[in-house]
Amino acid sequence: MRDVCVVGVGMSQWGEVWRKSLRQLFVDAALKAINNSGVDHLDSLYVGCMSSGLFVGQEHIGALMADYLGMQGLPALRVESACAGGGMAVRQAFIEVASGISDIVMAAGVEKMTDCSGDDATFALATAADQEYEVFHGATFPGLYAMMAHAHMHKYGTTREMLSAVSVKNHKNGAKNPVAQYPFEIKPEQVAKSVMIADPLHILDCSPITDGAAAVIVTTQEVAKKLAKPYIKVLGSGAGTDAMALAQRNDITTIKAATLAAERALKMASKTINDVQFAEVHDCFTIAEIVLLESMGLYEPGKAGPATLAGETALDGKFPVNSSGGLKSKGHPVGATGVAQIVEVYKQLTGRAENGRQISGSLKIGMAQNMGGSGASSVVHIMEVA
Amino acid sequence: MRDVCVVGVGMSQWGEVWRKSLRQLFVDAALKAINNSGVDHLDSLYVGCMSSGLFVGQEHIGALMADYLGMQGLPALRVESACAGGGMAVRQAFIEVASGISDIVMAAGVEKMTDCSGDDATFALATAADQEYEVFHGATFPGLYAMMAHAHMHKYGTTREMLSAVSVKNHKNGAKNPVAQYPFEIKPEQVAKSVMIADPLHILDCSPITDGAAAVIVTTQEVAKKLAKPYIKVLGSGAGTDAMALAQRNDITTIKAATLAAERALKMASKTINDVQFAEVHDCFTIAEIVLLESMGLYEPGKAGPATLAGETALDGKFPVNSSGGLKSKGHPVGATGVAQIVEVYKQLTGRAENGRQISGSLKIGMAQNMGGSGASSVVHIMEVA
Repeated sequence: MRDVCVVGVGMSQWGEVWRKSLRQLFVDAALKAINNSGVDHLDSLYVGCMSSGLFVGQEHIGALMADYLGMQGLPALRVESACAGGGMAVRQAFIEVASGISDIVMAAGVEKMTDCSGDDATFALATAADQEYEVFHGATFPGLYAMMAHAHMHKYGTTREMLSAVSVKNHKNGAKNPVAQYPFEIKPEQVAKSVMIADPLHILDCSPITDGAAAVIVTTQEVAKKLAKPYIKVLGSGAGTDAMALAQRNDITTIKAATLAAERALKMASKTINDVQFAEVHDCFTIAEIVLLESMGLYEPGKAGPATLAGETALDGKFPVNSSGGLKSKGHPVGATGVAQIVEVYKQLTGRAENGRQISGSLKIGMAQNMGGSGASSVVHIMEVA
Repeated sequence: MRDVCVVGVGMSQWGEVWRKSLRQLFVDAALKAINNSGVDHLDSLYVGCMSSGLFVGQEHIGALMADYLGMQGLPALRVESACAGGGMAVRQAFIEVASGISDIVMAAGVEKMTDCSGDDATFALATAADQEYEVFHGATFPGLYAMMAHAHMHKYGTTREMLSAVSVKNHKNGAKNPVAQYPFEIKPEQVAKSVMIADPLHILDCSPITDGAAAVIVTTQEVAKKLAKPYIKVLGSGAGTDAMALAQRNDITTIKAATLAAERALKMASKTINDVQFAEVHDCFTIAEIVLLESMGLYEPGKAGPATLAGETALDGKFPVNSSGGLKSKGHPVGATGVAQIVEVYKQLTGRAENGRQISGSLKIGMAQNMGGSGASSVVHIMEVA
């Protein structure tokens, strides 16, 4: 296996982007990544996208995006793992470069979610859950995560204030991110008083519906050095799955797919969880960030909520989480999210995070954790400064 | 890069399978491939599936299938390239095994197409074309391939009889395939007299709508030898794309994505097209088989139609094409088709084709060519007897 690096990154505008189509959002991000990296060609393209068929009536996204990038002929493939598609696109690019088959691969993610009605978007997102055992009976994602939140509160004493602290922290970080959909700060009492979606989750516990794309250039260290642009090393990539339906899991206060993905990524990287200095974590709901930090061993079970409340995961805390603003503030175009996490880790490790969002101190190792559905799939990458 | 082999194959029932769901079809094929190969575990799973979101309201297919196979935890990913998703699943498994990251990977494909209405299925399939420049204006696949057929007939003198000969040949082969959806022979005059769908294509020029799944076990030669089961080597894998919309291609009498995919696969295999002795080719419409044989250099432009009429591509011809029955007779569950092509090449190269479908002579090299949409993506594999 060859060493693998990320040498350029790009993001489109994120938010309710009425004037740009699925393909245009992708091209915006892709061209930035290409220009940012200085590569003169691509060998292959992976596009993470969850449900373009249901959102905008378009499948066959790999070929379409190669076409609209002006690169007809390029091997191109869409990968789908619900909201973990972006991280999986990076993983496939990693594997392809590691294998020696290709030297320069673009991993991108895109989703255009606001072109259909709210009901239709809710249905499209629900297809990431078990259609026969959950969705058919009326379950949607806020409801599934609400059950996880209640179980976690019951078992560990996690509180409303801890959930709110996740949202407040991520908005504080996102306020410094130029591409964030909601780049403003909020207060804990605003979260607690916002509209109830599925008890105990209020609307400010939930990540939004977003249009957007992100892209990174994955290549060998040899090519990265020649390009003479800032780059980072990808030390490890791990993926894992779990039962689709919550009812079929032994414990809904932990996310086993993330545990497995993190263990596998760390093993490949020859690192331990204690080597990781900061992380982008899949905070689709506030409770998810807490559960994930515990599932990956960054905190003991029941300790991530209190730690968040104490400011440990803030930008200036001892373990910054979601310096980008996370899904909550930056937005969550589902197939793009996992790639945007890599973009943030790249920026932090190369000292390029904008507007005072740079984590202080000497950063060496960062982690990105992306997740599908209620945690039936997860993918983790461990990255190191070059 | 490590050597890559296919060591076990499995297929579910193909057809209008009312009693089996998407997940059950997959499990049927997957368990056969596992039993057939003798592997005691998997390291990873790829599932090709075009549009389960539109067909049955279910995305997140990778994790779901790992779950229903009883392998929660397994890294699992869906790949999508319209009707080329199956071939792409095999390609990703090939890359992962070649890279050294995994030793035993399942590549599967599945589609459940008959659970929605005919109108809905037509819409779902149309999402493989360019939504903004083709589908919005009413184009569907029979219409797009009809344009290609007219152009080919005009340029090369391809005739109704040549198109019919493709269908007659593939039904003759499919009549010997126990999993074929339409395992019966037809006569040329039946094709010509069947219902017109989009001039010049009659319904017997078109592949059907099918429920079905297929799976293969991809591994290293070392593991394959230890398992002591029949196996074949995968010498080369190539993928290519082209403009999505027919109107944006220079020439619609050829499929450039297939040309590129075949060239790349042959280059990796260190073989020439003349080394290939038989092929599974993506005959979604009769005209497609003719165009593809020419696009990959198996016949000169304009010569594949006359060759088919002369019986050259028959089971006992000098270059047998679609010994399985092809998409036309075997059926076309879009995401599964590319994997089923590998199943057929495996059976032919290991001397296991059923019911007198075995190609005579000493077979060494076979090819499988899978295609998405009207040819915007294609993937080719070159396989060799072990």
